[in-house]
Amino acid sequence: MDWRRVLIGRPLKDREGTERKVNVFQGLAVLAPDALSSVAYGTQEILIMLSYAGMAALWFSLPISATLVLLLAFLVYNYRQIIAEYPNGGGAYVIGRDTLGPGIGLIAGAALLIDYTLTVAVSVTAGVAALVSAFPRLGHWTVWVSVLFTLFIMVVNLRGTKESAQLFAFPTYLFIAMVLIMVGYGLIHPEFAIARPASVLSPTTSALAVGPLLLLRAFSSGSSALTGIEAISNGVPIFRNPAPGQARTTLMFLGILLGAMFFGTSLVANRLGLHPNAAHAFPVTVLQLMAGRLFGRGVYFYLLSFVTMAILAIAANTGFAGFPQLASTMARDQWMPRMFLSRGDRLVYQNGILVLGGFAILLIILFKGNTAALIPLYAVGVYMSFTIAMVSLVKKRWAQNADGRRVTTIITAGLGAVLTTAVVFISVITKFTEGAWIVVVAIPLMLWGFRSVRRHYRMVADILRMEDLSGKPTPKQLVVIVPVASINQMTMGVLSTALSMNPDELLALHIATSPEREQQMTERWKQWNPDSRIKLVVVQSQYRAVLRPMVRYIDHLSRLFAPGRVIVVIPELLVEKRWQNILHNHMGFALEAIMVFRRSIAVMIVPYRLPHKSSDSPPG
Amino acid sequence: MDWRRVLIGRPLKDREGTERKVNVFQGLAVLAPDALSSVAYGTQEILIMLSYAGMAALWFSLPISATLVLLLAFLVYNYRQIIAEYPNGGGAYVIGRDTLGPGIGLIAGAALLIDYTLTVAVSVTAGVAALVSAFPRLGHWTVWVSVLFTLFIMVVNLRGTKESAQLFAFPTYLFIAMVLIMVGYGLIHPEFAIARPASVLSPTTSALAVGPLLLLRAFSSGSSALTGIEAISNGVPIFRNPAPGQARTTLMFLGILLGAMFFGTSLVANRLGLHPNAAHAFPVTVLQLMAGRLFGRGVYFYLLSFVTMAILAIAANTGFAGFPQLASTMARDQWMPRMFLSRGDRLVYQNGILVLGGFAILLIILFKGNTAALIPLYAVGVYMSFTIAMVSLVKKRWAQNADGRRVTTIITAGLGAVLTTAVVFISVITKFTEGAWIVVVAIPLMLWGFRSVRRHYRMVADILRMEDLSGKPTPKQLVVIVPVASINQMTMGVLSTALSMNPDELLALHIATSPEREQQMTERWKQWNPDSRIKLVVVQSQYRAVLRPMVRYIDHLSRLFAPGRVIVVIPELLVEKRWQNILHNHMGFALEAIMVFRRSIAVMIVPYRLPHKSSDSPPG
Repeated sequence: MDWRRVLIGRPLKDREGTERKVNVFQGLAVLAPDALSSVAYGTQEILIMLSYAGMAALWFSLPISATLVLLLAFLVYNYRQIIAEYPNGGGAYVIGRDTLGPGIGLIAGAALLIDYTLTVAVSVTAGVAALVSAFPRLGHWTVWVSVLFTLFIMVVNLRGTKESAQLFAFPTYLFIAMVLIMVGYGLIHPEFAIARPASVLSPTTSALAVGPLLLLRAFSSGSSALTGIEAISNGVPIFRNPAPGQARTTLMFLGILLGAMFFGTSLVANRLGLHPNAAHAFPVTVLQLMAGRLFGRGVYFYLLSFVTMAILAIAANTGFAGFPQLASTMARDQWMPRMFLSRGDRLVYQNGILVLGGFAILLIILFKGNTAALIPLYAVGVYMSFTIAMVSLVKKRWAQNADGRRVTTIITAGLGAVLTTAVVFISVITKFTEGAWIVVVAIPLMLWGFRSVRRHYRMVADILRMEDLSGKPTPKQLVVIVPVASINQMTMGVLSTALSMNPDELLALHIATSPEREQQMTERWKQWNPDSRIKLVVVQSQYRAVLRPMVRYIDHLSRLFAPGRVIVVIPELLVEKRWQNILHNHMGFALEAIMVFRRSIAVMIVPYRLPHKSSDSPPG
Repeated sequence: MDWRRVLIGRPLKDREGTERKVNVFQGLAVLAPDALSSVAYGTQEILIMLSYAGMAALWFSLPISATLVLLLAFLVYNYRQIIAEYPNGGGAYVIGRDTLGPGIGLIAGAALLIDYTLTVAVSVTAGVAALVSAFPRLGHWTVWVSVLFTLFIMVVNLRGTKESAQLFAFPTYLFIAMVLIMVGYGLIHPEFAIARPASVLSPTTSALAVGPLLLLRAFSSGSSALTGIEAISNGVPIFRNPAPGQARTTLMFLGILLGAMFFGTSLVANRLGLHPNAAHAFPVTVLQLMAGRLFGRGVYFYLLSFVTMAILAIAANTGFAGFPQLASTMARDQWMPRMFLSRGDRLVYQNGILVLGGFAILLIILFKGNTAALIPLYAVGVYMSFTIAMVSLVKKRWAQNADGRRVTTIITAGLGAVLTTAVVFISVITKFTEGAWIVVVAIPLMLWGFRSVRRHYRMVADILRMEDLSGKPTPKQLVVIVPVASINQMTMGVLSTALSMNPDELLALHIATSPEREQQMTERWKQWNPDSRIKLVVVQSQYRAVLRPMVRYIDHLSRLFAPGRVIVVIPELLVEKRWQNILHNHMGFALEAIMVFRRSIAVMIVPYRLPHKSSDSPPG
């Protein structure tokens, strides 16, 4: 009956919402997949970009990866400081808001909302790409498989994601192990050292020949590999005590693993001369290419495909954890619609989950399920939030008393901020026409939206406020209008209700579609003579419509009285079975929609439910 | 602003609805296209069916066509009698209902509704096939071109089709002329007599070898060529006086023209050895093949393609004239939903037009825009209505006084009924698995539907009836419940309205999501002390939901009082701009939907419209 119950599960009470705390091992499984899964597309995006300059240019993936690993080290070092400074977690929005003011907080908030949406879209499409590498037949359905996949993760999140640590540990660590085994085997095994094509061996092409712009674009594409490392600093409170210590240790492990996996993948891809533009009908990912070359299209290849897909699904899940949380925080600050505040039956912010799922699906459809096409949008938002977190750290330390580590932190965080700002600019400039412009346009629009929302809520609160409680409700004289189609039991019932309301004026309004019907109604009314307080008003309709003249008359009448005095009381026949609804014209609801919304007139629906008669059941 | 006005035109007043009467020449243009356009697919469907037995079998199209022309003569003769007997027109539904009783009338009604829907689907797809023959590139989009085409005819009909005679005459007569010229040229020109392949020359294959079943199936497919000849007898009143005489003359001309065009096409198709299964990527129609062979792919070919499409569009239009008219007649008899009775701004039965368009589009999509696939469904309904018309004629004449023509009519109409019944059986049996089963299943379902609708209306009328007018409306003591989220101006306004209703009990219902909020509310209420008649009720919510406990409480309360005494009065904030609606949760409308539909409790919405403040406009 209730399909929502089946899909999403039974409602949970408030007290069922206590979270289990995690240790370092579990924390890595819950918070690291977003970052670690980037290995599945980071190297690949660099190679795709470089391949535009020919095979020889692929070598440049090594210096680019090395630069990114350096940037990673910086980010990990600084985020460990951020964990110490902000032990309650909270993303760049909260940190920025509290340290640098609401304006900066909003910029971080906008960047993060975009980031979470892209995390979902990029992870899902990359996961589906891994699947398509293994099962090329799926290639024709990339977009729809991605959409279904997103819907699946959405439903899982609507059910609530309490069991995540246990569920996520296995694929996460399996992914780490499989990538590291592959990297180790690919680096050590002598057979493959010979197999690599000569052109990829050394920098035979100069950086100038490849073009600095292309190198910067490849760097910007690769910078997507570092997205997600902020997740641990956002999620400090989920760790066991001492939470900041555990989070810092987890972040260090994440940095080491991500660095090794990412740089290792780039190294091996180079050694094997892999490039993702091979003549396949559908993109084959670099990780799959690598597994295929090293171990053949066997168990390892297929297992890696599934594990890659699994960790990317978990990464998408991170977006579903972050977006609704951030949206609710911003809604509490009145920057976002109130609906993001309401937690549903399963204690999750279901509106945030639904909106995120909707936007992610929109992106997937617009970008045809192509990860590479989504990447240009990705880095801008993430690195903007990195920058804001770093600057906040600098400001916070600046205000503190001098101690041994104060200057070091200010310098490293400041340097980090400069680097991440550089990535933002590089990404915006080199990828502007490929999609970065969308983010550049979206962020100011979102800021304007946030402010409009806040302004509206403020205005409503101002208007509705009743500070001194001196005003009291006072009764007024009511004018009640009852539309009457004919004289029958339903009419009698609704007129009874209208009489009970003790109105000053009670009008029965009949719309006559012909002079004959007018005469018929007035005569029958006279015969009936229901009550001296009820006045019959008949209005002629030139067009066969009933609704329009009715609205016009009520509108006309309501102008004669003070606002709030006119009430329209409408009978509505309720049928027993759903199909019977098409047999009635539901004038009442149509009239209500017009009167309430367009004219601000109070409308009362008096339902007349038909009794369920056995003779009404269909013949056997 | 009002897109409907742009699409459909200004509203028309009742007195603008007088129709122009037509003469024979115009009448043929308005009422004949349905029948005449069958030439565009009749011969073709016979050939497609025969081609399954090989090229040699195509010769059998000649005896089959001859038999159908004989049947045509019978039908024309008998329908001329029907025009004389039923000078007020009315289709098989009215004739059957008035002569043979409502049961038979309903069968005819069901058959005709199916027939009209198929007329639209078959004509549109055949028209698009003519277009595709000329422009093969369109072939990939057959379904969508057909759907768009249907929507276009639908909109034209929603505007009203008063100007039809002038508009339709030109393409109709051009089509007649072009087909007859082609037939004449193809029969006379000696060049083509030599070109025909030997195998098609003579009945080298015996009927037994082809198989009697296949011949019957080909006959059944071809019988679709006679559909539409009933249109003139249905439309007698649109002729100038003496209407029956003019209609009879028109029908005679239609019979002669249709016979000549249909048999001529079959003859020439045989002489030229045309068969529609030629190796084309997309079906090329027989008329187009013929024009191509006789005159080359020149002006004649393209003009014929367009004229064929035009006359098929006009034929589809016949469906749009017939279905809404019949649906409204049956709705007046309470067999169909009341909505088919309401005429819209343009004096047309817009609901019938919309429903017909919807079903036709559904058929087109389900049958992938393939005329040949739709044909098996077509003949059954049409010939059932033919049969009912003939039998009605027999019965009517039987009851009359003996005169010279009485026996002749009874014999010819009786024989006609036997023939058309035979066609129904042949079609059902030979085409059962190809789609005729749909009609066989649909007609009993529709009869069951008609009776359920009538039973429901009868039941409602029984329940609502107030014969003696002795009952009078009497006031009752009201229990009014006002949901209150907090104490503010809106609360005060809605409580004022509730107080004005002079209730026996007035409860302000607050749902507290935490014990703190409960305490806060009760304290602030005590401070406010609005009115001694208003009682505050606070209900604790365990699940964060507000709506559910509110519904549960109201439901509980309403059981304590007599039905109709409990009224829920809900404040609803109305915003100035549409986008602001997403900023509010619209609890009022949600509550109303639950209370009115699920619990049959009277609900009143008291709108509180926010004043439009300039400070609310977005920043420049």
